[in-house]
Amino acid sequence: MPLAAIIPAPNSPVELRVLPAPDLEPDSALLNVELSEVCGTDVYLQQGRLEGVPYPLIPGHVSVGRLNKIRGELLDVEGRALSEGDRVTFLDVHRTCNACWYCLVAKATTRCPQRKVYGITYGMNDGLCGGWAEQIYLKPGTRCIRLDAEPETFMAGGCALPTALHAVERGEIAFADTVLVLGSGPVGINSIILSLLRGALRVLCIGAPDQRLDAALQAGAGDVLNIETADECQRLEWVFERTNGRGADVTIEATGDPVAVVQAMRFTREAGRVVIVGQYTDHGPLPVEVGFNPHRDLNRKHLDVRGCWGSDFSHFYRGALIISDPLRSASWARMKLTRYNLTQANEALADVASGKVLKALIQPNRPPELQTA
Amino acid sequence: MPLAAIIPAPNSPVELRVLPAPDLEPDSALLNVELSEVCGTDVYLQQGRLEGVPYPLIPGHVSVGRLNKIRGELLDVEGRALSEGDRVTFLDVHRTCNACWYCLVAKATTRCPQRKVYGITYGMNDGLCGGWAEQIYLKPGTRCIRLDAEPETFMAGGCALPTALHAVERGEIAFADTVLVLGSGPVGINSIILSLLRGALRVLCIGAPDQRLDAALQAGAGDVLNIETADECQRLEWVFERTNGRGADVTIEATGDPVAVVQAMRFTREAGRVVIVGQYTDHGPLPVEVGFNPHRDLNRKHLDVRGCWGSDFSHFYRGALIISDPLRSASWARMKLTRYNLTQANEALADVASGKVLKALIQPNRPPELQTA
Amino acid sequence: MPLAAIIPAPNSPVELRVLPAPDLEPDSALLNVELSEVCGTDVYLQQGRLEGVPYPLIPGHVSVGRLNKIRGELLDVEGRALSEGDRVTFLDVHRTCNACWYCLVAKATTRCPQRKVYGITYGMNDGLCGGWAEQIYLKPGTRCIRLDAEPETFMAGGCALPTALHAVERGEIAFADTVLVLGSGPVGINSIILSLLRGALRVLCIGAPDQRLDAALQAGAGDVLNIETADECQRLEWVFERTNGRGADVTIEATGDPVAVVQAMRFTREAGRVVIVGQYTDHGPLPVEVGFNPHRDLNRKHLDVRGCWGSDFSHFYRGALIISDPLRSASWARMKLTRYNLTQANEALADVASGKVLKALIQPNRPPELQTA
Amino acid sequence: MPLAAIIPAPNSPVELRVLPAPDLEPDSALLNVELSEVCGTDVYLQQGRLEGVPYPLIPGHVSVGRLNKIRGELLDVEGRALSEGDRVTFLDVHRTCNACWYCLVAKATTRCPQRKVYGITYGMNDGLCGGWAEQIYLKPGTRCIRLDAEPETFMAGGCALPTALHAVERGEIAFADTVLVLGSGPVGINSIILSLLRGALRVLCIGAPDQRLDAALQAGAGDVLNIETADECQRLEWVFERTNGRGADVTIEATGDPVAVVQAMRFTREAGRVVIVGQYTDHGPLPVEVGFNPHRDLNRKHLDVRGCWGSDFSHFYRGALIISDPLRSASWARMKLTRYNLTQANEALADVASGKVLKALIQPNRPPELQTA
Repeated sequence: MPLAAIIPAPNSPVELRVLPAPDLEPDSALLNVELSEVCGTDVYLQQGRLEGVPYPLIPGHVSVGRLNKIRGELLDVEGRALSEGDRVTFLDVHRTCNACWYCLVAKATTRCPQRKVYGITYGMNDGLCGGWAEQIYLKPGTRCIRLDAEPETFMAGGCALPTALHAVERGEIAFADTVLVLGSGPVGINSIILSLLRGALRVLCIGAPDQRLDAALQAGAGDVLNIETADECQRLEWVFERTNGRGADVTIEATGDPVAVVQAMRFTREAGRVVIVGQYTDHGPLPVEVGFNPHRDLNRKHLDVRGCWGSDFSHFYRGALIISDPLRSASWARMKLTRYNLTQANEALADVASGKVLKALIQPNRPPELQTA
Repeated sequence: MPLAAIIPAPNSPVELRVLPAPDLEPDSALLNVELSEVCGTDVYLQQGRLEGVPYPLIPGHVSVGRLNKIRGELLDVEGRALSEGDRVTFLDVHRTCNACWYCLVAKATTRCPQRKVYGITYGMNDGLCGGWAEQIYLKPGTRCIRLDAEPETFMAGGCALPTALHAVERGEIAFADTVLVLGSGPVGINSIILSLLRGALRVLCIGAPDQRLDAALQAGAGDVLNIETADECQRLEWVFERTNGRGADVTIEATGDPVAVVQAMRFTREAGRVVIVGQYTDHGPLPVEVGFNPHRDLNRKHLDVRGCWGSDFSHFYRGALIISDPLRSASWARMKLTRYNLTQANEALADVASGKVLKALIQPNRPPELQTA
Repeated sequence: MPLAAIIPAPNSPVELRVLPAPDLEPDSALLNVELSEVCGTDVYLQQGRLEGVPYPLIPGHVSVGRLNKIRGELLDVEGRALSEGDRVTFLDVHRTCNACWYCLVAKATTRCPQRKVYGITYGMNDGLCGGWAEQIYLKPGTRCIRLDAEPETFMAGGCALPTALHAVERGEIAFADTVLVLGSGPVGINSIILSLLRGALRVLCIGAPDQRLDAALQAGAGDVLNIETADECQRLEWVFERTNGRGADVTIEATGDPVAVVQAMRFTREAGRVVIVGQYTDHGPLPVEVGFNPHRDLNRKHLDVRGCWGSDFSHFYRGALIISDPLRSASWARMKLTRYNLTQANEALADVASGKVLKALIQPNRPPELQTA
Repeated sequence: MPLAAIIPAPNSPVELRVLPAPDLEPDSALLNVELSEVCGTDVYLQQGRLEGVPYPLIPGHVSVGRLNKIRGELLDVEGRALSEGDRVTFLDVHRTCNACWYCLVAKATTRCPQRKVYGITYGMNDGLCGGWAEQIYLKPGTRCIRLDAEPETFMAGGCALPTALHAVERGEIAFADTVLVLGSGPVGINSIILSLLRGALRVLCIGAPDQRLDAALQAGAGDVLNIETADECQRLEWVFERTNGRGADVTIEATGDPVAVVQAMRFTREAGRVVIVGQYTDHGPLPVEVGFNPHRDLNRKHLDVRGCWGSDFSHFYRGALIISDPLRSASWARMKLTRYNLTQANEALADVASGKVLKALIQPNRPPELQTA
């Protein structure tokens, strides 16, 4: 009878409930959750800002735990059987159908209409399908990875790791490029680390607040600028000074602010690439004062502007390999994490919403008195 | 002492002047113009809407003629010497430097700061550098192509041919894709023809007026919609009805209207490609009523939006090969051309500006009484 | 109780058997075969030259028919339900697993170890899984396409259509390229048609015998050379004469002869692309007299040599759209087909093996006296 | 009157000569050589194994020095003027024409027929055009880079750096890929370093002798195998054991041995990429015992095999940026260099030929007694 934290309805606080243990279908499993993530999407979920969410639901889309029980066979992509007791994580996206036009013709599985996401589009009626719970039900066909990394290190990447990896992949960074990252939240920080692993010579970051910019520097950013102390003009000047007057070769927008989409184009050199990965929620239309000018900002610059939605198993798998590697995990291992138990889920949401913490984790079995990082 | 038509200053009417015959530098040539183009850019030139134009200038960037005189050696890209009397055309872009960061590192020669364009950024002080003249001076390093096509057929493509070829190349059309072309001017019409030659199953076109849509149908468009009879909602519906409710695989925006940039995104399927090639002049910022929403219109759709500026020799060369080929030239050969002599240049500009003619050509030696098509 | 033609064991002649009608699993169907193909692979199957074939089997991997019975729901990739009586074809590749490393990480589904192919790696023990039969059992998950094309026209493409489409896609033909096709069998002929649809200016074909070269010309080849009348030196010279002394931009090897792999490299221009799609069966190692020199033939030429194995649903789907389109089907509609009924299957195999016919089809319900084309 | 080391003819020992100081053309310069490289190509030059070499010549294609004299203006690609006294290096490839079919249409400048290479295809009659001399004449149009790196560190990369960078670029390594490098000479070692900088999770190296494999480990290889202790079967097994039985995702062949070309295919996973960059000299045809089987080794594996010839300015520039960066230069800074003065050039060639040293440098002004590293 596992305990779970539930968002009962948009704008309602998280509640705790004891739920029945699931009956396992063939080739499914039950996972004992060690850590699950609290990310910006969870804040939007609680605020009712995402479409197609089947409230009530258990949030928590990226999680780590140990297999409690397997019915039938659970294989990883290498075809190796996983065993009870193994530590695993799993791709939160489930049921891409391999049968529709998007899966088979466009090969754009992140837009498969059948896809379901644990903790986001699976609701409580679908079962124990979110990580803010003592246990998660891994439905048949869930793609698991046996985890060699420390759970804390892996969760320091969390859902931002595959998201950023996808964005960096879309950015087609060339050797010695200068990359500009807009935003210093988890996706921004992961984009910095991964851009450097990809061969960028230097990564610049524009974000806020200062403590996140410190995290950006620690992640390897060569220089940072606080958005609160510099207007668009000053940001442009700051970028151009650091890029021989040309702008960044690749800009990754990871902010959540529509205005940044146009600034990303302006801060990028001619014939460069811009990846838009920060607009996961509807923040409304571009404000008029932005003055988006398709001639100057896009066509004459011969830019490539690439929306980047979701991630597929390859991004999750490659990210897990990288973060599990002792030589490459250091940037994540030193990230500051803040843990909460299930009773503190509302507090966790508030801390993420206010930017007070960089990365909040739910540790279901954590004693309440240990909350502070 | 060749006669030339000159735009003396922004917003001044074209004037005729007799200019001195040039002294030929080594490895340069003099071309007797047979036909030169009057395109939308020339209208903007006359209206003073382009930056960096050294008035007074002789317009006419794409032209066909016969070599009158060669000093030294004039080779084509195959290394074959051209001879006096040969019919040639030449790439209007000159002096990409092969020495700057854009040429050598970014490999984005259409953004080389040293590039000069005959009839646009070469002014009268640079010599006989525009096609609205009895003769053009081909400076050393001008890239010529011996022309096997009929001059009229080649000019039916004109500058729109390499521009559209570049755009279609950027669109990465896959076999059997549905392509949507926004705009039914010369670039739009050429994009229709080339998309079909590239393996598109069907091309849809939204434009105006009806006579240009007729040209679109003649060029092979499967269906057309007049922009004046359908608002954005109706256009969207029209496109979705023809694409199984998904939107076009590839959209090529060739309109000159900033609003079309956002509509192009909306009319394209998720994970599709949008090429922006219609914003060659500054038409100001996007009007607020467009309501460009980066979440809905770009990021969630996982779109690729690609600015497309200018064209390089490869586009010009490949376009010339295609249009010179008897099997493929038919679509161009039946396009309606309207010819003007040098004294009628202002009339030609007015007819292009009003959309009265699809393609206007200057034929310097045309007797005045023969003007009508 | 459908009648089927069976290869009982390697090197045994085809036999006829009456087989029990299958029990339909949920979401499966039974197809009444109208036409099924006899291709080179079937000859190899009969000769025992393919690995992993579970004899006895019913050959026939690409087929067209009408749905006789559906149990449950049969959807196409657009999500539309198919009905009994509909004419359909289906992708012969089945059960790519969407769960293994090749499917999910490498995204190379044509190398998924779980894939099964109707008529090749499904044996008789798997049920009615080949097209040389009155009926085929469409297992759950079989990807069907409702067919608008004439069955004969579609079968003129047959399995060579998606194979060639994949090869042409891998060849990355640019506008106005010269493509060289080695081989004039079905894959070669389809490669000619599709290269032209893709924007090639001209396609050259080297093959044999003359009647197939006539088919190549009819398919649009600009020039052909009979391999029996020209040795390697003469072929090289022939190609270079037609390509300004450079070689083809793209060469598609579709011969079945290992020697052609190295010739393909030699006949291609520097920095060009070579697609190897003709080596579907093991013909042993390269003969020593070929003198393959990696310095001269590959490295110094900066070539891209691309193996091309199988095809996925996208190739099949795009091919079906093209061949169903009235404007594009002409090249296939005029191909010469030869039909056989089930009792004539051995004859069909012999005619394909000898090259006597270009395309042989099994028409299960064809009266015996109508065999000649 | 600079002193230079000269190869007078194939198979003749290097001789010293005093040559006249050049007259500087406009926009040319004279460089005082600090260090120049002795690489495998120089050994082949001396042995007369390269085509098109205009003996006598001064070897030394990649060099570092200080500008002694500039006539006119010498700009870098950023458009900044270089000054006398500046330390620079320069791209050895000169006079790619920006006018021929390969430069302008194929965009394959490393195959431009007009290209000339300092120290290889420029002979003594072309002037002081090799680095084994006190001074080099930098002809107009030579592409210089102001060097911030230590000269020794830059030369530790030497010509192998842009070559390997080009190869790694062609390999399209994905995040967390396993890369296999065949060969442990300078190109192999640089490929190891750069593959790791590009996001490879692990690099395996097969080469010889042990001291070079130690250098491979020091460069970051995860595991190495001595080719002398393992036959092809054992190598294959060794690779497959380290790649979950699949083979490397990307293999870079940098050996100089034709046999390795086929082994590279065999050691690579299905649908992987193979870059052939080790066949810069003609070592004759593939030996028959290799048994290259196009079906098994190439087509069925759906491999991409990519020849990689030369490098262009972008590779040189990006390499120079990386090696000049303090955070990334460590792998090169610890490489073992052996210096020779001009009188020791024959000794240097012998040491490179025998594999006794990893990287030999000519230091023209080095006192003779200081030869040992």
